[in-house]
Order: sequence, then structure tokens, then C-alpha cells
Amino acid sequence: MSENTMKIAVLPGDGIGPEVMAEALKVLNVVEKKFDVTFALSEHDVGGIAIDNHGKALPESTLAACEAADAILFGSVGGPKWVNLPPQEQPERAALLGLRGHFDLFSNLRPARIYPGLEALSPLREDIAKSGFDTLVVRELTSGIYFGKPKGREGVGEEEFGFDTMRYTRREIRRIAIIAFEAALKRRNKVISVDKANVLQTSVLWREVVEDVAKDYPQVELEHMYIDNATMQLLRYPNQFDVVLCSNLFGDIISDESAMITGSMGLLPSASINEQGFGLYEPAGGSAPDIAGQGIANPIAQILSAAMMIRFSFNRNDIADAIEAAVVQTLNDGILTGELLPKEKREQAKSTAQVGDYIAQLVEKA
Amino acid sequence: MSENTMKIAVLPGDGIGPEVMAEALKVLNVVEKKFDVTFALSEHDVGGIAIDNHGKALPESTLAACEAADAILFGSVGGPKWVNLPPQEQPERAALLGLRGHFDLFSNLRPARIYPGLEALSPLREDIAKSGFDTLVVRELTSGIYFGKPKGREGVGEEEFGFDTMRYTRREIRRIAIIAFEAALKRRNKVISVDKANVLQTSVLWREVVEDVAKDYPQVELEHMYIDNATMQLLRYPNQFDVVLCSNLFGDIISDESAMITGSMGLLPSASINEQGFGLYEPAGGSAPDIAGQGIANPIAQILSAAMMIRFSFNRNDIADAIEAAVVQTLNDGILTGELLPKEKREQAKSTAQVGDYIAQLVEKA
Ligand SMILES: [Mg+2]
Ligand SMILES: [Mg+2]
Repeated sequence: MSENTMKIAVLPGDGIGPEVMAEALKVLNVVEKKFDVTFALSEHDVGGIAIDNHGKALPESTLAACEAADAILFGSVGGPKWVNLPPQEQPERAALLGLRGHFDLFSNLRPARIYPGLEALSPLREDIAKSGFDTLVVRELTSGIYFGKPKGREGVGEEEFGFDTMRYTRREIRRIAIIAFEAALKRRNKVISVDKANVLQTSVLWREVVEDVAKDYPQVELEHMYIDNATMQLLRYPNQFDVVLCSNLFGDIISDESAMITGSMGLLPSASINEQGFGLYEPAGGSAPDIAGQGIANPIAQILSAAMMIRFSFNRNDIADAIEAAVVQTLNDGILTGELLPKEKREQAKSTAQVGDYIAQLVEKA
Repeated sequence: MSENTMKIAVLPGDGIGPEVMAEALKVLNVVEKKFDVTFALSEHDVGGIAIDNHGKALPESTLAACEAADAILFGSVGGPKWVNLPPQEQPERAALLGLRGHFDLFSNLRPARIYPGLEALSPLREDIAKSGFDTLVVRELTSGIYFGKPKGREGVGEEEFGFDTMRYTRREIRRIAIIAFEAALKRRNKVISVDKANVLQTSVLWREVVEDVAKDYPQVELEHMYIDNATMQLLRYPNQFDVVLCSNLFGDIISDESAMITGSMGLLPSASINEQGFGLYEPAGGSAPDIAGQGIANPIAQILSAAMMIRFSFNRNDIADAIEAAVVQTLNDGILTGELLPKEKREQAKSTAQVGDYIAQLVEKA
């Protein structure tokens, strides 16, 4: 890509996707005026709407547009209209697994954060929630026990057994570790690597390779933590975590636990990135068809997905920081959609567009 | 065993073991007077003290006494004096793994409970902690990915890989499921079985066999939950959990997270049971050599281990209930050892013997 032009494939998708994407584009529009960057946006169908318009969830035209782009800004897909399709044709599976496979998006980045002023949403005790929580789980997404061969069933009667293989190569561990250490450089220079090296051979190799990668990042502090201890430490001392590096299974557990700790899943973005730094950025939540079209969905996860895209695929921490600061300010100013408010204060809820406008003007003034 | 006589091998061990065991025996003594039971106790060396007196952590004489008993009441083992021995001769490994292997103690039962009045110790938000948490994690301990073959390392260079095998037979799943359903009958008649059946073949078989066992327990409600979801649900809705049935790895994670949720690890007992209902009962915590001999250790985990023994190996729910009720009352009356008190109230701390006496007299009056 040219230094200051970012080509973005915009895929709003279904449900609340289009309305929250509109707010993210509003913010990108302000960023263009404020910073020395140009966004070349091209919008394409994906998911259910692509099934309706093109006969499949990931049409060739959409895939071609993604290939021509520097990054994919993804909304959300799926809804009741398409639930009765065969599993492999359904919006979520066909679109997301299709894109992940095509671009080898082997890393999943899931930030989780308790925002100042929103501590009461966390299921953690007030003093612990207020001690701070701002983490990024880096999960390997394409190997490990979910995909390792052999897996299956053998034997008969009571001796019949099911089996799965946890498996990682040095190469697979190295590339996800590099993603984690690079991310740490953009954050607070700390990596906690989660494993079970006291009992798993895969973890012993994991630890060796992570130690090796760490040598290239002397400014980053590395700590190893067993998975069972990590699930405990997250509850009691959440502020010790910056980047958390995990295999597929352990990352599945730690990223979900971390999201729950924030108590505000609707605020969480995510990214899937390949070895070239090409990535797909999307809200961690779903398409929420039950509230689509009402203008009440929270656009923050989509806006933060755009900020992640700018940080990780375009390496512009300054712009990402400005957007994230505007989000923090907005939440702190109480400009909140309904799901963040206690029931008795729901009438103070702001609309999707009001929240987007507020964030955009804060970025403009930054 | 004769209906009303229970033969117990008492193994106090090292560190705080002997002093907390003395309080458990105090309670058993009161139980004998109060209920229609006789305890035939025989006390034996185990762990470090057995190394000093007999040259090994699990002497033949101790093992023979355990074989002659109906259950093992275990204290704790290990300390600085023995840390430089070869790993397989160390007190923890040699004594506990030796007993587990010899008696095929394939199930690990770990209760976790937030006691009324002690909600502030939990890292969970006050309203969630007060909603209640009283669970029993039943973990398979001798199979699964920690022991499955093959495991190792192969290949060279960047394609070198580490691998482990998750593996369960129908027989292995069935026997741990039976432990869980039987335990549910002694509690609130609910089992949540934790797996990852959407991606693991081992979990698909696990779910099948658990469903099959459930048919024999129509009065017990069964629910399946994915491991990633379970780690989240424990934080937000802890009171939905009664018995939690887990494979070895998932149980390692869930039992530790559950213990942390209570915020009072010093109160937690545990049990390891075989197919014949023979079991080893011990505090979940360690030998705490740093506070040994000062009379300040909390005896409750040891006393609750004795209650579990009476419930699970002797099937006397009435006696176990009476002991557990006395513990609840003691905590509620503020008869607390120092580690349960905030720093500014430490001078109100009761001694090990004072807490034991208080519980014993409550059982006597019950
Ligand atoms: Mg998950
Ligand atoms: Mg553990």
C-alpha cells in the first residue's frame, strides 16, 4: 500500500452490521480530515445478504475485493432467515471460515478492557475491577487440538475410545509468538504465555520456542503461566495481564473468560491476522438480529475494530490511540446505549448514531 | 466394614498437618459420642516424616494400614527439609501419587463454596457472591490428555512438532460419570458436564456416555456446557452449578477457578475415590511449613475432609451435614483464624485449637 492510502474492503453483512458500520465509517471520515491519511473504501456483500444477492455467503466478487485491499473491516453475519441452510452454507461458517482459510488468518486477537466508569458492569469485586484490566489475548486459531490429526473413535464396547491430537510445530508456535511480541511493543511490553508445560509435551516445545522468540524482543518482559493458574489469576489480579499468548484451546478459554470479566461484550473488537500483517477486523459479538434496524445497537465494538485495523494493519498507533481515547471519553461522559445502563436509567440511552456522532466529534477535536 | 464401625487410616504428615489433624480427630471424637458410630483410628507416618523415620515417603507399614482401613484421612506433606531429594522421592509425589496409583483413586472431588458472611473474600462482585456458590467439581484424574499415548516430539528444524493425545474410553467416562451422578444425589440433584463436543471427538463420546449414565438417574438434571462457556458462567451465574463433571484437563481448570471464586482456599477439602468407594480425604491446600507449629493454621479444611469422608465413604449424610452446619455456624459467628480476617482485625484471630473446639462443641449440641 502507498504510505498514506489505506485500501479497505468494507463488509457490513447482516443484522446490526450495516448500522454499526455506518458509525465506524463516520469516524474514518473524520480521521481522513484530521490525519495525513486517505481511506479507499469499497463496500461488498457478505453473509446472508450475499446469499440473497449472489447465491453464496462469500461471493467471488467480495473475495476479489478483499484480495485487492490492505485490510477487511467486517460487520457481522447471520440471522433467522438463513438458519435452515446446510451448515457449510450458513453465513457465519461460509463467510468467516472462508475468509480465514483463504488468507491464512492464523492469529486471533481479542482485546478485553474494563473501562473507567464501567467497573460496575464487571462481575469482579469493585476494588479488583477498579485496579484495572486492559489485556489483549493472542490466540492461535488454525492448529492445536481442534485440528490435530489423528482424531476419531476406535475399539468396541466399553473399550471403545475417542481421541484427539494436540499438536504444534516450531513454525506454528514461532509465528503466533511473533504476533504476540509485536503486539506487546504496541502496548505495555509484557507477554504472559499460557501453557501446561508440567504435563504436556506440546507445551514444553511451546515454551522453548516462545523463549527463543523472546530473545528478539529484549524490551518485552516474558512470563509463563499454567492454564489452570491463569484462569485464577485473571479473577484476582487482572491488572497483571497485558498481552496473553495462547494456543488454540487455551486461547478459546482465556479470551472468553477475559471478555466476561469486562462485563460488556458489546464493546469488544477482534482481529484475525496473517503472517503478512493482512487482517480481518470485526466486533467480537454477533449480528443481533433481534435489535437490528432500531438504531439502538452499540457501535463501539465496530469503531474499535476500525481502530485495531489502523493499529495492526497500518501501524498508525497515533490514530488508533486517538479513536480509543475518544471511546474512553464517550463512555466516561455517559454517552451510552441502553445495554450499558441499569434498567432504571434506560430512558437516558443514546442511539447508535448519537454515540457514533459523539465519538467522531471527539476525534475531530483531539 | 461393620455397619457402625469405621476403620480410618490417619496420616497427619508434615507442616501444619499434625496440628489441623488433631482438630479433625477432636470432632470425630464428639461424633462418636453423639451418633451411633465408632471410629477405629490408626495413625501412621507419611511424607517427609516417613522419609525421616522409615527412609521413604510411603512406607510399606503405612500402605498396609491403608489397605486394612475403610478410608484414608490425610493431612499434608512436604517442606523445605525434603525439597532437594530427587523428584520421585519427594514427599508430595511419592506419597500422593503412590496412594493414588495403588488404590486406583481415579476421581478427584473438589467442593467449593462461598460461606455466608465470607462473601467479601470472593473476587466476585458482592451481589454475585451473595447470590450463592456451592459446587462440587468431579474431575477424572488418571486419563485424558495428561496421560494419553502417544505423546512426544518428532521431526526436525522448524517442522519439529510436539504432540499429546487426549483419549477416553467408554469405561473411563462411565465410571467418573457414575461418581458425579451419585454425588448429585447427595447434593442438589444437578450435574453440569463440561466438554468441547463441537470440536473434540473425545468430547462427543464423553457426551454420549454421560447421557447414557444419566438414564439411571432420572431424578438428576443433566446439562452440557462447553469449557469456554463454563469458565464464563462461573463468574456471572455461579449459583447455577451443583456437581460439575469434568475430564482431567477441564477439571484441572474448573476446580482451580472454582477454588479462587471462594476466595478462601484454606477452607477447601478434597477427596480422591475409587470404584469401590474407597477414598483418600485431604485439605486442598498444602503443608504451609512457614506457619507450622504456631497454632494459627485453619483446621476447617481438615475437618471438612473428615465430613466428606463420612459422606462419601461411609454414606452417613446426617453426620456430614451436622459437621458442615457446625462449620457454617462457626464462620458466621466470626470464630476465624487470621488469614480470613482483614489486616486491621487480625488481633481478633482465633487459634487452631479454638476453632476446632468451637466446631466440636457445636456438633455436640446439634
Ligand atoms: Mg469460545
Ligand atoms: Mg490445577
